[in-house]
Amino acid sequence: MGLRVLLDAEWPVERLLYLESLLRNEVTILTDRSSVDYNVLVSGRPDVDLITGSTCLTHLLLPWAGLPRLTRLLMMDHPEISVHNIHHNADSVAELALGLMIAAARLIIPADRELRKGDWSWRYRQEGRLIINGSRVLILGYGHIGRRVGRASTALGASVTGLRRSTASESFENGVRLMPAGSLHRLLPETDVLVLSLPLTDDTEGIVGGEELGLLHERSVLVNIGRGELIDEDALYRSLSSGSIGAAGIDVWYRYPESEEERTATMPSRHDLASLDNIVMTPHMGGCFGAESLEMERARQLARSINALASGGNMPCRVDLSAGY
Amino acid sequence: MGLRVLLDAEWPVERLLYLESLLRNEVTILTDRSSVDYNVLVSGRPDVDLITGSTCLTHLLLPWAGLPRLTRLLMMDHPEISVHNIHHNADSVAELALGLMIAAARLIIPADRELRKGDWSWRYRQEGRLIINGSRVLILGYGHIGRRVGRASTALGASVTGLRRSTASESFENGVRLMPAGSLHRLLPETDVLVLSLPLTDDTEGIVGGEELGLLHERSVLVNIGRGELIDEDALYRSLSSGSIGAAGIDVWYRYPESEEERTATMPSRHDLASLDNIVMTPHMGGCFGAESLEMERARQLARSINALASGGNMPCRVDLSAGY
Repeated sequence: MGLRVLLDAEWPVERLLYLESLLRNEVTILTDRSSVDYNVLVSGRPDVDLITGSTCLTHLLLPWAGLPRLTRLLMMDHPEISVHNIHHNADSVAELALGLMIAAARLIIPADRELRKGDWSWRYRQEGRLIINGSRVLILGYGHIGRRVGRASTALGASVTGLRRSTASESFENGVRLMPAGSLHRLLPETDVLVLSLPLTDDTEGIVGGEELGLLHERSVLVNIGRGELIDEDALYRSLSSGSIGAAGIDVWYRYPESEEERTATMPSRHDLASLDNIVMTPHMGGCFGAESLEMERARQLARSINALASGGNMPCRVDLSAGY
Repeated sequence: MGLRVLLDAEWPVERLLYLESLLRNEVTILTDRSSVDYNVLVSGRPDVDLITGSTCLTHLLLPWAGLPRLTRLLMMDHPEISVHNIHHNADSVAELALGLMIAAARLIIPADRELRKGDWSWRYRQEGRLIINGSRVLILGYGHIGRRVGRASTALGASVTGLRRSTASESFENGVRLMPAGSLHRLLPETDVLVLSLPLTDDTEGIVGGEELGLLHERSVLVNIGRGELIDEDALYRSLSSGSIGAAGIDVWYRYPESEEERTATMPSRHDLASLDNIVMTPHMGGCFGAESLEMERARQLARSINALASGGNMPCRVDLSAGY
């Protein structure tokens, strides 16, 4: 009655040994894709062969948080297999969100670029800058990441509101006001910093479009560490280039490299965002892929989920396929 | 028996009116430098004429926190006049410190620069990055700014230690460990992020030199929002260019423009820091000079100090000329 777990990815040996050291005795790790009797598949983007390759597969465990669109579609055909995720890099993403927030608010990018040439002009162009202390931060999607961004923003002296689909009416959690998702339009005019930490689903695609950006004031700061398509691409460019919003820090995009060659030649948007001073552009690095401490945490969270099942309990962090997260 | 206050700076009319609206009735604001009977001089860099121009001058009130070297020397000749400061931009500086910390730790500068050209390579170069969560932050100078940086770092999950000259032995304040300044060398090897928020004095000049930087590990992050000369200029360049420390975020410098023309042509260091990817370089903009909310706060703090004196009390925030802050 052991549990057999197939890993669908190359793991460095020492990291695999670390994972195995954390697992209960009755768990066996498999790395051979031709195995036929695994109960748990650890994979983010499994193909259909892996899903149908075992007659006793009951759990798909994503080694990260976000549910890819194709994985979602595939798993909807297999309701007998439950889908779970982990949140090992929520801290890393939340920290980048905070870094993008401040870098955008203070225009660190052009200030650094010009000082490298000996030009101090940005020192004398601070009138319109937003100070987080005393400002109003609105977090769209108050989950593992949003909660961490909220805690740090509160520590900086902001009033924080979190929007969550599951919140029915105003409530409070650790000094953060929680509001139902339906209050977005009412809250935007009184928002200084808007942070998107939502999953991308049919409901959230384009949740911030021209109308929503139009409700923000001209010194406001927008941060997106969710998924690119949460924000309408045209509206983002228009509002930044016209100055109808103050600045943005964006880590997630509209276009991604699809091969190793494309990694050095893929503009992340069809618009010329790169010409703007009031944007910070990072190449989807919130998750800090490969950082040693996060890979260790990833192994710990996978082990915790697998051990929960192996000991007769439920695997935690079940993904709701219809909601998409 | 009113109090007469000379402002040695051009104030925009609406801001002057705001300041006057906050002052007690017995306070008169003067803006004419030829006045001879002022009790309080509000000036950061007064010349000797202003200090000796009134026979009843008892207080010099700096409209910011840092005591300029020349002002210090001048005032040492006038012990009958007490010197005071305000801390209206501590939040603004602390926020920039946090932004520099994360931007440096995650290499946001080169990542942004390359993504603007369509190059995503930094997404795949995250192995060595430092995550603040779980890291050890050491704050050198735990005053108005250091305390705010400590609070935010704690919220991000770091263990924070503050070093303060006035701390005699280990103690704790709001989850932050306070240690005597003498423990610096012992603490550096176990430090991931070193933040300098000290004033520049004879004691602190070069407090971080080659020896101290050599005690930090190769993924460590250094942040300076105090004064440039706190860090030895040669040692800073050597440790960043050799990679003996991980990255730095620097807002305060070794060379400053000395005229309006020089503002566009003054390299901030004699070394070629501008060629390095692992530094964030901002042009001394922590104070966010000119930002509306901070100018209002400046007026409020000046009014509070003046009103305290006008009502028969002591003016707060006295500067210790011998200590230099």
